[in-house]
This record gives sequence, structure tokens and C-alpha cells, in this order.
Amino acid sequence: MKQSTLKESYKQSKYPLSGHGKRNIHVLKEAFQSIDGDVESDLYGEGSVIAEFQEKMARLLGKEEAVFFPSGTMAQQIALRIWCDEKGLRKVAYHPLSHLEIHEEDGLKELHKIETILLADKGRVIEIEDVLNIEEPVASILLELPQREIGGQLPSFETLKQISEYCQENGMKLHLDGARLLEVLPYYQKTAAEVCALFDSIYVSFYKGIGGIAGAILAGDKAFIKNAKVWKRRYGGDLISLYPYILSADYYFNRRAHKMEQYYEAAKELAQFYNTCHGVSTLPLIPVSNMFHVHFHLSKDQVETVLTEVQQQTGLGLTSYSKEINEKSCYFEVSMGDLYDEVPKELVKKAFTQLNDLIKQRFSSI
Amino acid sequence: MKQSTLKESYKQSKYPLSGHGKRNIHVLKEAFQSIDGDVESDLYGEGSVIAEFQEKMARLLGKEEAVFFPSGTMAQQIALRIWCDEKGLRKVAYHPLSHLEIHEEDGLKELHKIETILLADKGRVIEIEDVLNIEEPVASILLELPQREIGGQLPSFETLKQISEYCQENGMKLHLDGARLLEVLPYYQKTAAEVCALFDSIYVSFYKGIGGIAGAILAGDKAFIKNAKVWKRRYGGDLISLYPYILSADYYFNRRAHKMEQYYEAAKELAQFYNTCHGVSTLPLIPVSNMFHVHFHLSKDQVETVLTEVQQQTGLGLTSYSKEINEKSCYFEVSMGDLYDEVPKELVKKAFTQLNDLIKQRFSSI
Repeated sequence: MKQSTLKESYKQSKYPLSGHGKRNIHVLKEAFQSIDGDVESDLYGEGSVIAEFQEKMARLLGKEEAVFFPSGTMAQQIALRIWCDEKGLRKVAYHPLSHLEIHEEDGLKELHKIETILLADKGRVIEIEDVLNIEEPVASILLELPQREIGGQLPSFETLKQISEYCQENGMKLHLDGARLLEVLPYYQKTAAEVCALFDSIYVSFYKGIGGIAGAILAGDKAFIKNAKVWKRRYGGDLISLYPYILSADYYFNRRAHKMEQYYEAAKELAQFYNTCHGVSTLPLIPVSNMFHVHFHLSKDQVETVLTEVQQQTGLGLTSYSKEINEKSCYFEVSMGDLYDEVPKELVKKAFTQLNDLIKQRFSSI
Repeated sequence: MKQSTLKESYKQSKYPLSGHGKRNIHVLKEAFQSIDGDVESDLYGEGSVIAEFQEKMARLLGKEEAVFFPSGTMAQQIALRIWCDEKGLRKVAYHPLSHLEIHEEDGLKELHKIETILLADKGRVIEIEDVLNIEEPVASILLELPQREIGGQLPSFETLKQISEYCQENGMKLHLDGARLLEVLPYYQKTAAEVCALFDSIYVSFYKGIGGIAGAILAGDKAFIKNAKVWKRRYGGDLISLYPYILSADYYFNRRAHKMEQYYEAAKELAQFYNTCHGVSTLPLIPVSNMFHVHFHLSKDQVETVLTEVQQQTGLGLTSYSKEINEKSCYFEVSMGDLYDEVPKELVKKAFTQLNDLIKQRFSSI
């Protein structure tokens, strides 16, 4: 069974379960439909379009200022560089599966010569003990909430408070990779500002739960943001016009920021369906945000065969891909959005009954 | 006379002489009007939207491959870094008024520790002698065509050929800052590929003469572009979606790339009008592209007073700003585009007669 078949059956499914819909030009068209054409472009970081959105995000996050970036990669490297320069020490600590460590072609190291210390084991989130056990001074610690690469897991809020206090007492800046910050607020039962109060700098993304086109916000105090704008220019991120991302970020923020509780509930419900299936389990078992991973104790080929069959027969879209872990296991990621609400519940039940039956029939040995 | 008054009178002018029109949301709306909403987004540098435009630009520039960047700042630093790494030498040479030297907060130096050698005097373009006189080895030379900060001046095509040959013979890579490459082709009477054949790597912009929203192309051989894509990821330039810039770049490229001759002729005509005025001269005297600078042998205050008056009385838009050189002189930049064709010629003549009369009346001493 080729992956392209799974992908094809997902594309043709009438009811995809996750996400907000396809990443196509409609996303832009919808966002700009109601925006007056006479609205002036931002201009190299200036102008009301960018200034107003930055102010709105600074207020949301409870920080003095915020700056819009084309990408989180750029924003976060810059945040860590600023904290390193402030301390005169090119060393930071983060999770072994941090975006900076595995998805950025070592930009932090290649562009800034910043050394990294990896905290915690790959399979779990950073706990206070990991921070207490750092053996050499670091300028900054980066926490990612939720830890995406392990299904979107979270430390307790109490742990966050302990880490924050320890960092403050020991002259280390705490940076939040909050690409999915809004998505974890229903679990913590906190406002964004309450979470951000524990951090010196925060990055949030606008194309995860928010479902915008691209773009990121970096927030912190005035001196930090002033510095971040200089680095944004150095990186070539200070585009003449960022409004295609800013205005769409704002549009989808307004449309979806208040729906994170709904996505979170949907994730818990859907995870439960997966967990009823033989040889299938979600990580985390009970999601703590709108996302989770689905793990199969079956080979990638076996999984793709049954998933394709279920997708073709029910019209339900479960996934377009799976990733091999080893010969006997694989997984895929799920992020809940607007679409789940539109799917008839009876169909979902039917599809998971069928998935479970198929797995048991075909692979009775597991 | 405050600058805001000049700016205000320019904004309210019925006939702005330069450019393609206002930088507002209409620019995006127009570009996307005829694009099918079902067209899929590019995805981290992949997908037909980005691949097809890159191929089209590679063909235009006569290079093996091309990669789309959010900004020229990012593209050019990366080009020079690649050439430095190839030679194992962090040293490049360019004009003292290069964009990298004066507009990028020293990104090249801060991010790459690349040393720069400044060629030629500020007031003129780089000639073959400047290159022959470089005393220490450099990995790469960057030439900007036209040299924007001095009104858009050009070396002869013969000089370009000599510099190119010398670089090739002496193991130095020649990079083209071709932000305005298309704009100089009518003067050289060459195709883009004929000019680019003299260079190892080329950057072109899509929001100068083309009038797109933002974005840049970097072109070169396969190995160079493969490397550039790694650095693009490191910089945080490998956005999940760049289509707002790519599709608009393509739209305005198709609409305007063939009109550069028209803009060039318009620049020569308008420069002539300016040069008839007392105490006013353009740089270059006869433009070699669609751009030039207008220099006044008058103070910024004096100039803004008369310009505001002319703009208010004639409805013609000459400029929104001026930059002080010293107490007795100032200048502004002009880039010709679609708008000039829509302006009644009689009105232009009348406005320049009035400008000349006003200058002579008010400032007879110059």
C-alpha cells in the first residue's frame, strides 16, 4: 500500500476530522473579502495595520510590546540571541525535540554560535528536576507548550511556576515557544496573560489552531522588542509589506481564538474513539490541547491499508500520512479545528467500529 | 514648512507622476481576483505554486535553478555566505552604498562575520579599476545594477564583461544585486539572461519596477540553490506559505515586465522637465533605467515649500518627501511606473513652468 493511496483517499474524503479545511487560496480570499482595498500597506514595520495588531497581541499576552515576524523560526532564534547577548553567554537549554533542534537546519548554531543543552528525555516534558540539574550556566531556557513532537504534552501549571521562579532567582531568561499557546489555555484554565506572566519572552503562531496563512508574534518588554526589531531587519524579516499575513492572522484570530475549548473537547472525544481500537493508542491518552498523536502497534503498511479502506468506505478523513517508528509501529498527528463539528457523530462511530473490526480481522496476532 | 504638508499635498494629488499607484490592499485584491480559490498553497518551499514560478524565473535569468525568498536582504546575505564558505574566506567586496552596507543593520557582519571591502567612491559606480585594485583576496564581489543610492547609475556593459572575466580568472564569485535588473535591460539592450550570464548568482525583486507586494528570487546553479534552500530554512524564510507574495509577484510580472522600456522613456522625459528648472538637476542627468534622483540647490525647507505649492495648485504629485544633504541642498528619488502615462502632458508642462517660476521668484540668489 503506497502512501499516495492513503493521501488520495484522505483528499477525497467528504468529512476530514481534523483541521479547519484545506490550505488553499480561499483562506486568503476569505480573510480579505471584507477588508477595504483602500487600507494602506504596512511599510517596513510601520503603519497602523502592523502597529494595531502588535498592540492587540501585546495586550493579550500581557507584555509591554510585541512585534510581528514572518516566521517563528526567525522570532525564536532572535529571542534566544538577545538573551544570550544580555548575559554575555552563548548557551541555552531546551527539549531534545524542540523545533530549533530538529526543524531549523541548526540555524541557532550556524547563525549565532549558540550552544544548546538538551533537557529531559525525548519521550517526556521538561520537569523542574531537569532545570535544577543543569550543570553549567545558561542564558535562557526555552519551554514549548504543548510539546508538539510527543503528541502535545504539558507540564503542570505548578511546574511552570517553579521553573519560572527558579529562572528568575538564577538569572536565566525563560522563553515560551507558544506556537500553540492559545490551544493549551482551556486545559490550564488560565488566560494567555496568566501563562505569559511566567515568561520573559513569548512566541505565538497564527497558522496552527488559529489557521491563518503564516506569521508569528514575539512579545516581551520594550527593550527586548526594540532589540528584536533590529534583528528582524538583520534577518531580512522586516519586509516592506507583511499585511497578507497580519490581516489574515487578525481575521482568523477573531474567528477562532475563542473556540479553543471546543477544539480541546473535540480532541478528547476523538482520542477516545481511537483508544477503543485494538492496537491503537493516543499520546497523550487524554489530550491536553487540540492535538494528539495516534500510535499503532502495526507496521506503516498495515496501518495505511486499513486506514485507506476506512476512508474510502466511510468518506471520513482520518489522516493523509503515517510516519514509521519501527517495523512494528507508526503514528500520525491530529490537530482539531472547525471541521470536526460538521461531521455526523453516527458516521464517526461507524468508522471507528469498522477500523477496529478491520484491525482485529486482519492482524489478529497483535 | 513641515514635511507632513508636502506628504499631505502629494497624497491628495490627482496625478502622481511616479510609481504604479498606492501600496494598499487593492494590490493584493487585484492579483488574487482571477486566481481560483481551490489552488493549493505552497508548503515549506514545495508545491506547484512555488515550483512553477521558480522555474519560470530560472528560465528568464538563464540559470539552472531559482528559489523564492520573502526578502532580498535574506537572499543576498545567503548568496554571499555560500560563496564565502565555498572559498573558505569570509570576505566580500561591494559598493559603499550597497543595501547590505547601509540598510540591513549589519546583518552580513553580525550573522556571518563576513568582512567587507568597499569598492569605488560613494558618488560613482564600480569600474574595472576598482576591482583590479582590490589588495586582498575576497570570496565574492557584489554589483548592484543600477546603483540605487546614486540615482540608479550603471557601468557600461563592457565594464561588466571585464569585471566578470577578471572574477572568473581570479576565483572570485560575482553576485548581482538585481533588485532592479529588469529596469536596466532597455538601456543595455540585452535580455535578462545575457546580463545574468556574467554573474554566478542573481537576486531580483518583485516590488520595485514590477510593483508586487514583496518577495525576491535568488538564481544560480543547482548546488548553489540547494545550499540556499538550507540557509533559507535556517533564517526562518522557509515559510509554510509564501503564495501571497509568489502569486502576486507572478501577476504583476506578467502585467509589467514588458513595460520597462516605457518606464525608461518616461524617466528620461520627466528628468528633462526637472532639468529645465533653475537650481534643479537630476542624477543621472539622463536616466539609464526607470529611476533617477532629483537634486535641488536649495534647502529642504525651501524645496518643500515650493513643491507643496505646485502640488496643491496643479494636482500633480511630484514627491511625498525630500532628504536633506546639507543646509543648501536636498534630493528625492523618482521611480517611473504605470501612472505617468495617465497624466495629461499639458499639465506636466504647466506644473514645471510653475515650479521654475516659483524657484526663480523666491530664491533669485541661487
